[in-house]
Amino acid sequence: MDPIKPRIFKGTRDFLPQAMIPREDIIDIIRECFSRYGFSPLATPAFEYVDILTGKSGGEVDKLIYPLAYRDGRTLALHYDLTVPLARVMAMYPELPTPFKRYQIQPVWRADRPQLRQGRFREFVQCDADIVGVGGVLADAEIIALTADILGRLGFGIGERKFLILVNDRRFLAGVVAWSGLYPGQWLAPVCRALDKFERDGMEGVRLELEKLKLEAKVIGRLMQVFEDAPAELRERAGHSKARELLAGWAEVLDYDEEALSVGGLFDAVASFGVPDNIWVFTPWLSRGLDYYTGPIFESVLPSEPHIGSLTGGGRYDGLIGRFGERDIPATGTTIGIDRIFAAMEQLGIAGKNRSRTQVLVANFGADTLPYELNMVAEFRNAGLATEIFLEPAKLAKQFRYADKLGIPVVAVIGPEEADKGMVKLKWMDSGLEEVVARTRAVYGLKEKLEMRGE
Amino acid sequence: MDPIKPRIFKGTRDFLPQAMIPREDIIDIIRECFSRYGFSPLATPAFEYVDILTGKSGGEVDKLIYPLAYRDGRTLALHYDLTVPLARVMAMYPELPTPFKRYQIQPVWRADRPQLRQGRFREFVQCDADIVGVGGVLADAEIIALTADILGRLGFGIGERKFLILVNDRRFLAGVVAWSGLYPGQWLAPVCRALDKFERDGMEGVRLELEKLKLEAKVIGRLMQVFEDAPAELRERAGHSKARELLAGWAEVLDYDEEALSVGGLFDAVASFGVPDNIWVFTPWLSRGLDYYTGPIFESVLPSEPHIGSLTGGGRYDGLIGRFGERDIPATGTTIGIDRIFAAMEQLGIAGKNRSRTQVLVANFGADTLPYELNMVAEFRNAGLATEIFLEPAKLAKQFRYADKLGIPVVAVIGPEEADKGMVKLKWMDSGLEEVVARTRAVYGLKEKLEMRGE
Repeated sequence: MDPIKPRIFKGTRDFLPQAMIPREDIIDIIRECFSRYGFSPLATPAFEYVDILTGKSGGEVDKLIYPLAYRDGRTLALHYDLTVPLARVMAMYPELPTPFKRYQIQPVWRADRPQLRQGRFREFVQCDADIVGVGGVLADAEIIALTADILGRLGFGIGERKFLILVNDRRFLAGVVAWSGLYPGQWLAPVCRALDKFERDGMEGVRLELEKLKLEAKVIGRLMQVFEDAPAELRERAGHSKARELLAGWAEVLDYDEEALSVGGLFDAVASFGVPDNIWVFTPWLSRGLDYYTGPIFESVLPSEPHIGSLTGGGRYDGLIGRFGERDIPATGTTIGIDRIFAAMEQLGIAGKNRSRTQVLVANFGADTLPYELNMVAEFRNAGLATEIFLEPAKLAKQFRYADKLGIPVVAVIGPEEADKGMVKLKWMDSGLEEVVARTRAVYGLKEKLEMRGE
Repeated sequence: MDPIKPRIFKGTRDFLPQAMIPREDIIDIIRECFSRYGFSPLATPAFEYVDILTGKSGGEVDKLIYPLAYRDGRTLALHYDLTVPLARVMAMYPELPTPFKRYQIQPVWRADRPQLRQGRFREFVQCDADIVGVGGVLADAEIIALTADILGRLGFGIGERKFLILVNDRRFLAGVVAWSGLYPGQWLAPVCRALDKFERDGMEGVRLELEKLKLEAKVIGRLMQVFEDAPAELRERAGHSKARELLAGWAEVLDYDEEALSVGGLFDAVASFGVPDNIWVFTPWLSRGLDYYTGPIFESVLPSEPHIGSLTGGGRYDGLIGRFGERDIPATGTTIGIDRIFAAMEQLGIAGKNRSRTQVLVANFGADTLPYELNMVAEFRNAGLATEIFLEPAKLAKQFRYADKLGIPVVAVIGPEEADKGMVKLKWMDSGLEEVVARTRAVYGLKEKLEMRGE
């Protein structure tokens, strides 16, 4: 029989330490932010009953899911997002206190054609934060503040790598669609998809898409006015101070004071949360793909790296969470795109490259010195230093090579001479510098130096 | 049409915040230990090609896996452990530096009959640390030291809740089986399963199991000698100082000096790693269920809570990792049982019970004071305090109830009076005590008090 060839399914990935260490670091930073903003963790099973996932209609979702070969093969399937499970949780546990602020970081699976270059996979980690059970712009503003905090702490705050959060409101777009002479219930979604082309193809790209929809010239003209009326500052993303002007102007035309006011309230709340003015911008053509948004929508981008796409995206979706109950449940939230963020960090050269978190390797000189070496290892570890002992006796050159390959900054050597004298030799791998210090003093000296070097 | 009933598949679980917060805390502590011992993270896809999982034979594993309804339903399946994926990774990426010390924390799925009471689920998080590519007892000793460190930091170090690590060696058991007159290749596994009864049913339970195997009385007598020869200290788990005596005695009978020596080396290395003598014990009848162990084996238990079973378990398995290549690859490691550990912590009353990590709730007094409140929220968060704003204006009593339900220790109130005077009222939820302080000084005072209270 042929040997079994080791391989994985296309569109799924192994994360070796060099890729996994920065991913864990990213997720740790995000989790810290989630907690600091009062979000609590939730986890749900990887597979759900199919009717939970597809709803009554099935349809689009049906093509997206991986069912298990269990019973008829139509009973259980892997979840394709974390929003449907959240809706199920809200219906199953009415005792959960609301507002329910939850985060959830788990893999999801989509039976898509994978496009590895564009970063589309069949398995990827979804990272969501949502606020369930409360309407009003304060919750939306908090999601924007959370997003800004996360991206800042991940290192996207300064200079070339500065992020920008684009903000709009689906109700504004619905108003524009109605004013153009179309029925929003039917036309909001296709018009949104056309507007989506602006980022890539500009205004003329949008006009072309609208023409493909076979709309009357007058209708197209009115839809295009959303761009023409936008002050240059908004078009060039130079700030959102003109947004109120624009919205006030539209408010008169669209006769929707209430929405305009609520967007104004959103602006105020975002500012009060301490989000600087220059990292978010009202973007009247921002539409987001998904049909289920009902209010404010937002996504964050890196203007310097447009090909990466949005790092985060979300909005208010008041119709979705109540699907298993009899009442509507308001909800707003965002997805943090771990893969995109990691790709962006690699692109910008701010992703870690270490194959290991180990700070010090204690060399293994053989049986005679081993007890001293293991004692040293235990001392380093007790002091909080990530420490390895080379696990078999080997030539020192081989042990140094191992440290080098893994990016371990320092090797501690206790040869027979050092063993006798109560000393240890510390060799710094980058400079090659060596120092011999008393073992009793090695721990704190080493800790201090590593901290100074930021390792 | 009937509404869809929200439900989950038997043997899978939702983890609501109250369960998920302590689980995340447990996993964070474990990850910190893994890193400090020089282990690096690895992640692999949830599903693999079926032949990777089952090997050439299929058989037992076949019944354990959940295949996907993809192609013939026999192409892809969810992984049932993290060891087979590790073996695949070692074969696919020969460039990985060895020794490869990796940890992996991911859900696995088993098409078992779930036994919820005994803590057996169809989906559970597996948490493994393994050292691949190096033989010798030093690696085994490091796994034991790692286990001791983890359990100590999780709070199982003292008094009633003290853990104990049981250590044995499969080669010792194979020697005993051979000496009894049986061929180990055929009889080691069934004899191990019989020995496994000792913890629950004592020596007579083991004898009964051996009799069920229809072994000769003389053979059974010799097998039982492993218990009869064990010094009382070992039987009563009072320490392992007598282990060398026992092994030396057996070594003469079994004629296996080399193994005896290697177990002695294991003892020395464990001691040199700083593991205290009284938390591990040589247990000559410890056998572990799985067939694939080839050397030292270990598991940790809580003697005060025998019904919980082992918290961790592992050993050396030199034949498994090389299965996709042409060479043998030595390996040793341990599984950390997150579910068992959580159950034990609940049992012992040391599991956290908070529904939230939030430290302070800022009350929402309405539009007039909202800007002050949001500023306060931003200040608290910037100082690292986990902070919530009540996301809609509501009666104070309702907001206090929310804090109470979630276990948030303090509520900050900025009413119109406090707003004018630059003050904030801090209400401590447990004592009901209130203090009014300047907002400019609130952050650090609050931080200090929360730290003093350990919250």
